[in-house]
Amino acid sequence: MELLQKTCTPCQGGISPLTLSEAEALLPQAPDWQLLDNGTRLERRFAFKTFAAALAFINRLGDLAEAEGHHPDITFGWGYANVLFYTHKINGLHENDFIMAAKVNQLYTDEYSAA
Amino acid sequence: MELLQKTCTPCQGGISPLTLSEAEALLPQAPDWQLLDNGTRLERRFAFKTFAAALAFINRLGDLAEAEGHHPDITFGWGYANVLFYTHKINGLHENDFIMAAKVNQLYTDEYSAA
Repeated sequence: MELLQKTCTPCQGGISPLTLSEAEALLPQAPDWQLLDNGTRLERRFAFKTFAAALAFINRLGDLAEAEGHHPDITFGWGYANVLFYTHKINGLHENDFIMAAKVNQLYTDEYSAA
Repeated sequence: MELLQKTCTPCQGGISPLTLSEAEALLPQAPDWQLLDNGTRLERRFAFKTFAAALAFINRLGDLAEAEGHHPDITFGWGYANVLFYTHKINGLHENDFIMAAKVNQLYTDEYSAA
């Protein structure tokens, strides 16, 4: 099943994070995202024309994060937003992180590619 | 005049940033903020109970930034927001950054100290 069709499952810890090779196998389903810190973090930088446009996107992303129960760490300012996903309880990546990355890509494409 | 009573003035560059001693002299008017990178950056970490509470604060901060025409770089996630001010056109600090810091403090106190 494609990531976009999935929803995040609860992760209470007690399991192993994805291995680097497992993360690399999922990465093609999250275009433009990159693995950081030896495959324990997933990040993408998004470009915007203004501060307000970045903040509007972050609000939509926040709604998605609340709906999925999985939240990113975000750094943003005028014209950019860096979105970082990982699963805090296992201090590494889970399929949930890739599900979110794919859905955030879709959000960006839907809302901003025409802007 | 106190910083809270001032508004940001346009800064198009071409002037020197505040010196470290000038920045240190203004810092007491921005309690809980700290100088970074040899006095060229001004940062404060704010605590929240959830991701949504942090995002709500950031939206209020965004409204303030638009009104003043001076925008921070923000890193946030579940339960926290790090707010960083500097004046990009002079790659250092301007009185505007301290005006914003004082006003962000007031915003946080007004909205969240009772929460």
